[in-house]
Amino acid sequence: MRTLPHPHPEDFDLATVLHALGDPVRLELVHRLARDGETTCSPEGLSVPRSTLSNHWRILREAGVVAVRTSGKTRLVTLRRDALDTRLPGLLAAVLDELTGGRDG
Amino acid sequence: MRTLPHPHPEDFDLATVLHALGDPVRLELVHRLARDGETTCSPEGLSVPRSTLSNHWRILREAGVVAVRTSGKTRLVTLRRDALDTRLPGLLAAVLDELTGGRDG
Repeated sequence: MRTLPHPHPEDFDLATVLHALGDPVRLELVHRLARDGETTCSPEGLSVPRSTLSNHWRILREAGVVAVRTSGKTRLVTLRRDALDTRLPGLLAAVLDELTGGRDG
Repeated sequence: MRTLPHPHPEDFDLATVLHALGDPVRLELVHRLARDGETTCSPEGLSVPRSTLSNHWRILREAGVVAVRTSGKTRLVTLRRDALDTRLPGLLAAVLDELTGGRDG
């Protein structure tokens, strides 16, 4: 089992987090994580090549937006909601409001 | 006088706004606009080439983050605070909290 590096919340950088969130596919991944909780790193119904998806997860993980853990042969991903809310208060809430309310309403 | 195109708030796209904000130089420009109000498009003390700066302003304008108007030979830039607050509530506030409180505190 490999443990991937994750930044400490104190090291979160605003520009890096905003850049990580500033992509439609990565926003869709964040939206699913917020809705579904922990998921595999190969979510269904996304027409994105595996290598591209892997790159998106890396950008999100390195920015501090998601945590990735390995369970057997599976990688499982969660949203680092508490860390983001503590370090950058209000940011994730504003993004998720738009992803949920904005799309449905 | 040329009038540059600006998106209507209804057309603001979350990923595009986050991408526009997700760069250290563009965040610094937004920080200055929030602090100083309307400024010229060539702020002092930024060691950024003029063409690069022009590109940053274009990205911010096209996303809806700033408004640019021409006065004589000068271009003046403002933050579209009301439009952002209306269309993406809480987002700009969270970013500015970090830019001001986060840096000073």
